[in-house]
Amino acid sequence: MSGPLFDFRLTATDGDARCGVMTTAHGDVETPAFMPVGTQGAVKGVTHRDLEDLGVEILLSNTYHLFLRPGDDLIARRGGLHRFIGWTKPMLTDSGGFQIFSLAERRTIAEEGAHFRSHVDGSAHLLTPERTTDIQAQLGSDIAMVLDECLAHPSSQEEARLSMARTLRWASRARDRLLELRAGPVGGVQVSNARQAQFGIVQGGVFPELRDESAQSTVALGFEGLAIGGLSVGEPIDVMYDIVARATRWLPADRPRYLMGTGTPEDLVESVARGIDLFDCVLPTRNARNGQLFTSQGRLNIRNARYAEDDSPPDPACRCSTCRRFSRAYLRHLSVAREMSAATLNTLHNLHFYLDTIRRIREAIRFGRLESFRRTFRDRLSVQPHDS
Amino acid sequence: MSGPLFDFRLTATDGDARCGVMTTAHGDVETPAFMPVGTQGAVKGVTHRDLEDLGVEILLSNTYHLFLRPGDDLIARRGGLHRFIGWTKPMLTDSGGFQIFSLAERRTIAEEGAHFRSHVDGSAHLLTPERTTDIQAQLGSDIAMVLDECLAHPSSQEEARLSMARTLRWASRARDRLLELRAGPVGGVQVSNARQAQFGIVQGGVFPELRDESAQSTVALGFEGLAIGGLSVGEPIDVMYDIVARATRWLPADRPRYLMGTGTPEDLVESVARGIDLFDCVLPTRNARNGQLFTSQGRLNIRNARYAEDDSPPDPACRCSTCRRFSRAYLRHLSVAREMSAATLNTLHNLHFYLDTIRRIREAIRFGRLESFRRTFRDRLSVQPHDS
Repeated sequence: MSGPLFDFRLTATDGDARCGVMTTAHGDVETPAFMPVGTQGAVKGVTHRDLEDLGVEILLSNTYHLFLRPGDDLIARRGGLHRFIGWTKPMLTDSGGFQIFSLAERRTIAEEGAHFRSHVDGSAHLLTPERTTDIQAQLGSDIAMVLDECLAHPSSQEEARLSMARTLRWASRARDRLLELRAGPVGGVQVSNARQAQFGIVQGGVFPELRDESAQSTVALGFEGLAIGGLSVGEPIDVMYDIVARATRWLPADRPRYLMGTGTPEDLVESVARGIDLFDCVLPTRNARNGQLFTSQGRLNIRNARYAEDDSPPDPACRCSTCRRFSRAYLRHLSVAREMSAATLNTLHNLHFYLDTIRRIREAIRFGRLESFRRTFRDRLSVQPHDS
Repeated sequence: MSGPLFDFRLTATDGDARCGVMTTAHGDVETPAFMPVGTQGAVKGVTHRDLEDLGVEILLSNTYHLFLRPGDDLIARRGGLHRFIGWTKPMLTDSGGFQIFSLAERRTIAEEGAHFRSHVDGSAHLLTPERTTDIQAQLGSDIAMVLDECLAHPSSQEEARLSMARTLRWASRARDRLLELRAGPVGGVQVSNARQAQFGIVQGGVFPELRDESAQSTVALGFEGLAIGGLSVGEPIDVMYDIVARATRWLPADRPRYLMGTGTPEDLVESVARGIDLFDCVLPTRNARNGQLFTSQGRLNIRNARYAEDDSPPDPACRCSTCRRFSRAYLRHLSVAREMSAATLNTLHNLHFYLDTIRRIREAIRFGRLESFRRTFRDRLSVQPHDS
């Protein structure tokens, strides 16, 4: 294997918050970073060029979806995911664990792995910790995630304990497999990105002791980064913040920390303040398609009749391409008329809002002003509750 | 009224083909020109910025759709269609005649105008020649079309004669109304674009004598431009070309000629050769959404299984943003997976193909080489029939 491995270095701290740089085979990523979700190798409603214009440095793609269609073998034959989808910057692939969890009655979890039926054609599949490691090795993402078991909320402590323990055993198997693959091809599979990092995932539901145990044991497996999973699934917001704050205490300072599937703009600010470096969430893109805009004054549902004759931009404080050119009245018309460009223009705005928020967070950390930024951010949102 | 009216001047001719420049309140348009269709004030799948990047000089919007939603009164209060949708270049609005024709059993045509039920909410409406003129005056488009009656193909000569005669009476009423409006507000309606041009429409089905009569009488009404309507509705292609060639002979050389709702790339070349200056068609955008790409080697259905592992660009001869970055394999994946960006990337390509074709047509006319261009264009398409 040639070239340096995945690298992460801290550049500034402010309380528990950190700024850093992740170095991958496809370039650097400044953290804290927000990853738009490109489920099937594309972010819904926008093009790669739009993402580049927005300053997106890292994209998330879903292993579950790409495995089912077009398949990791096909993508490997095309030279890996980056070449296949024409995206040249860093990418993270999840493990498919959360998607399988979402399949509800169409899946069974066993010790060997997750048995499930495809949402595309009903075909039966088994995803093991080794198989998801293989798939992501073939995709050649810059960061691969281990297969974890996601648990519904609420769950009993005993259910959470058993599940957490299984996730740990799976993490160990996934790590072993990647180390094997790094040494050479295994059963026809070879790593298509020699610098691919692998992140472990802390589980344990809402139980502090289980989270502690999961964090310590996952760290011990030697991953290049650590994630916190199983949150944003219905637990109270304070519980989530407490778990994040508690978990990050166990995570080594020199490795990136990724809070999976979270969250609102406020969640970003609050979680960075608790030591998180990396986020992904479908909220900005999915809500955009439903007409909900994130603004400096709170959320705004553009389909609301009150905007029918409103000539002001969606967010007067925003400098995105949508706010610089279009009125609420026009965006409402497009959204009500179900025009495709409603989704595009709303998505461009929401992603800009998220990326701008994370940029401002980084700046605040560098100036040692995160606490003040956090307060202003909270106050501004509470002034005008807007549509939500 | 201040400022010069709508203007058109010829800059080059080659046989019956012409190059010219239309001057409007929102800028110049080089002809022959192709207008993408922005039905509801937006072109499906792409943004205004995409259209500007593609070099679009004039856009078409549909009066029928905008009248129903959000309504011409609301748009007038927003300062007209240009300001409402944030498009600063020239726009043409149709009269709604063709959309009403498409409503089939939900409309009745009477001498006063077209009675119809909205496809949005079933509400009953009457569009008269005067009303469509008023609506377009409120929209403030650069080119307004008169209300015409579109006839199904096939129709008897007697049906076509009656319909053509009614279209002529309607054209005269629409012209009278615009002249009234130019003099001052009528019943609360005022022109929001003092330089708005009005085009008459030649009808007459597939009957040469009716077309002759319609052309002569429509020209006599003094419109700033003339359109040929009622074609591309199922008649044989040679019949359409013959009607176009025959109609343009009656049309004054110093006015733009617009072939409505047409057509394929070959139709553009063939119709320019017969003296047409202006086109609109949903083919490039609608077919893009269905996965059909227009290429230098013919049409290509990107969903075809044969492209699953094809790493070449959609059209190797094309320089559009889609062809420069993406493979057939990726576009097929997006299209099969029903990702929104499939529509966007395909639309960007197809519009580029149409606009590039029309640019090359203009160049050929300027060099007096249209006949040779036409031959090459035809031959290239016939070499590889591709998917159609």
